Formats: sequence, C-alpha cells, structure tokens
Amino acid sequence: MPMNHEEILRGGCRFFVQEKTQDRETVLNEGDFVIIPPEMNQAVFTGGEDAVTVNIILKRSTFGDSFYSLLLENDSISDFFWQMLYSKGSNRALVVRCGKDERLRSIVLDMCGEGLFCRKGAPAGGNLMMKGYVMLLFGWTLKAHQQKMEDVGSISASEAVLPVMIRYIRENYTTVTLTSVAKHFGKSEGYLSRYIRRETGKTFRFLLKEFRMKQAANMIENSTCNMEEVAAAIGYSDISCFYRNFKESFGCTP
Amino acid sequence: MPMNHEEILRGGCRFFVQEKTQDRETVLNEGDFVIIPPEMNQAVFTGGEDAVTVNIILKRSTFGDSFYSLLLENDSISDFFWQMLYSKGSNRALVVRCGKDERLRSIVLDMCGEGLFCRKGAPAGGNLMMKGYVMLLFGWTLKAHQQKMEDVGSISASEAVLPVMIRYIRENYTTVTLTSVAKHFGKSEGYLSRYIRRETGKTFRFLLKEFRMKQAANMIENSTCNMEEVAAAIGYSDISCFYRNFKESFGCTP
Repeated sequence: MPMNHEEILRGGCRFFVQEKTQDRETVLNEGDFVIIPPEMNQAVFTGGEDAVTVNIILKRSTFGDSFYSLLLENDSISDFFWQMLYSKGSNRALVVRCGKDERLRSIVLDMCGEGLFCRKGAPAGGNLMMKGYVMLLFGWTLKAHQQKMEDVGSISASEAVLPVMIRYIRENYTTVTLTSVAKHFGKSEGYLSRYIRRETGKTFRFLLKEFRMKQAANMIENSTCNMEEVAAAIGYSDISCFYRNFKESFGCTP
Repeated sequence: MPMNHEEILRGGCRFFVQEKTQDRETVLNEGDFVIIPPEMNQAVFTGGEDAVTVNIILKRSTFGDSFYSLLLENDSISDFFWQMLYSKGSNRALVVRCGKDERLRSIVLDMCGEGLFCRKGAPAGGNLMMKGYVMLLFGWTLKAHQQKMEDVGSISASEAVLPVMIRYIRENYTTVTLTSVAKHFGKSEGYLSRYIRRETGKTFRFLLKEFRMKQAANMIENSTCNMEEVAAAIGYSDISCFYRNFKESFGCTP
C-alpha cells in the first residue's frame, strides 16, 4: 500500500483533491512538497514545460519503520503522522511549504541519483541508502519546516477522533483501560473496541501493549532501573504478566 | 548496549584487539573504518597530531532497525552482521578499507555537523536525520566496499557456528524443525535449544516465527497471493495457526 510524496524541484504544480463533493486546487511552488496517503482521491498537474516534479512512492511499512520510534517518544509531531500510519483510507494530504531550501534540494537530487540505479536485484546497499534518504528528508523537514505544514482535504468526523484518541492512550499508557478511554470519550466500550479495531486494524490491548513494550525497551536500554521498577513505571502491577508480554514482543526475557 | 564505529577522517590510527592471549595491531589509514561490537576488548590510538578519528556510537537497537529487513531478504550480506545482531559479547571487529572515498567522507562530515546540534531534547527531526546518516553510511559501504572488509579478532568455536546455523534456519524456514536442525548439525535437540537460547537470547521457535512472519508480511505487501497461498508458502500447514501467529506479531489478522 504505497503512499506518495511529491516534491517540486523546479517550476510549480497544481494539486487537486476531492473535498466533500468539490475539487479543491492547491498551488505548489518550487521547493514545496505534499505527502499523500494511499488511496486518496487526488491528481497532480505539473506546471510549465520545464517544470520538474519528483514523485517518491513509499510503502506504508517503510514509513512506519522510519517514524515509529520517533512517534512514541516525541509529542511535537503532528497528529497527521499518526493518522497516516494508523488510519485506513485517509483523505487528507499534508502540504509543506519549504520554499528554496538547498539542503532539501540536494537530498532529493541524491535520492534521484541513487534511485536510477536501485531496482530490484540491485546491490544490497542501495535499498538501505534509499531508506536513509527518506529519513533525512523527513528528518530535515521536521527540523526546519515544522511550522510550514498545512492540511489539504477533508477527513470524516470518525477519522478526526482517531489521532486524539491515540494520543490520549499514548500519554496515559501507564493507567488507561478500555473502560477509562471509553468514559473519557463518552462512548461505550463495545463501540470503542470496534472503532479502534476498524480504524487501526489492531486491538486496543495490542496497541497498549505496543506502547508499553517500546517504553520498557527504552527504559532498559537507557536507565539503571531493575525489572520491578521498569514494570511498575510502565503500568504493570503483575511482574509475571510483564515478563510474559515482553517475551511475546521481543522473544526473550528482559 | 552501544557498538562503536570508528572512522578515520584524516591521518591514521592503530587499532588493538585481544586475539587469544596476545594483542594484535591493525593499522588503519585515512578513510578506513572499523565496526566494533559492544563489550569487545580493544583500544584505538589516533595517529599524528593532526589526525582526526570519528567515533560513532550506535545502540544495538538502532543497528537492528536499520539492518533487519535487509538481513532477511539478502544473502550477500556477510555473516558478520548476523553475528553483530544476534550474538552476545562477540570479540570480532570488522575493518573496512575504503581509502579515499569522497562520498563516505561527506556523509561522515554531514553526520558530525548534525551531531553537534543533536542532543537529548533537540528538535524531533535531528534524531531521524542521524538514523538516516547511519543508513547512508552502511548502505554506501555495502554497495561500494563490500569486497574490502576484513575480520579482526577471534571468535570462539561456539560462536563461529551461530551464523551458519542462523543462515541454515533462514534458508530453510519453510521446513525446518528443531529436530531437523539438530540432526543437520549433529547435536542433540536439548543442546541446540539451549545453545540458541544462550547465544541469541531468543528461542528457536521465536526466531523461526520471526523469519516466517517477516516473509509473510513481505508477500502480502508485494504479491497478489491469497492468505492460504501465503500460509502454505511460508510453511504453515494449519491456517488458523498462521492467523494466530500473525496476530501475535502484528496485532491484526492479515
């Protein structure tokens, strides 16, 4: 399930997206780019004759690999990225107005250079380099242009709740239960459980376990806490349950 | 558990490693680098007064994230990387003789520039960029210098078997059982089970499930096979067992 990343290297382009029943046009100038989720209704028209638009197509899994650890530890990342990663069939794109940024330009050019020689069956390192460039691209964008992002497109009311809910679960991962989340958002447990399952493809229990285990791995690596302290810090009152979940996730006891 | 990556930017340096009971000296020239596993007995002495040595310290988990998908799909990667990732307390380093390589040099310089401003609490993108540079570094090295790698240091006979065994399990993941691996390597099942557990920290069952699930996710993303075909292709005769394992690994049914 690929997602697109359109980068305007020279000239400009027009980007159309279906918003409710109408098409909405967004003009992209040189240096800007737009991140488009998979299966979105959209069209891109490159500007003049000498305009150059670069289309970078990523697998959702590559996107997830690159962002996952960041999303778990950093609050300043927009809910947009959570939505990209967890929501199915989102109809909202992210436009980033970078303008003339030499660094970004050189990353994209290097990437194109590498891409020309990197096909299936290419030498091992090529694939790794492409991933590296994707990380540089997003990393630099977040660092230098975080304030210059705009949403385009519409999301349904049901989709709009998801990132808020994910954030709530993540921020309260030591104490939340399905009951407490349902209460906080004024929904029944049954509805919430089905909603999370439908929108993210994962169960509430699995998401929570994922947040906790990433945090546990992080604490074990970066602190001198013993296992009882780690288990308690991430919200396990039962140490044997912590050991069991840890083993399920990482294949070894901590 | 950090691992080191020493890069010689200018001048040279001498690298000492304990080999059996003696120290062995390796001279590194400008442009060369050495990858040193965690907890190895070693020492590095930088050359002349104006020599510059760059020491890049990676968490094992960063290294794993960057390499994991590659290791599963590519056979041309040296067993060395498997050993780095799976073996505990390895005493073998990898020297890469890159010589004067402008591309590598510029990646390392960019990395240093970024590193100076990237501390804990630094803007979100910084961390991502560092990971990107690590991938570029290894990616480019694999692509351009795969033939210029030499092992330094000694490994015990017990360690030397591990990569061969991992490769055997990985290459025969559709059909292997603990019994068949034990038979192939002329060991008892009990010994093998304990050996794998001790050297990798994971059980045989978990390793095998990991190989199969990665392969399944790969097939689902890149082919049009239905679930029965995927399950059969990766060695599951029982589809419900496939569904259960998939759910354990990814939190959703396929």
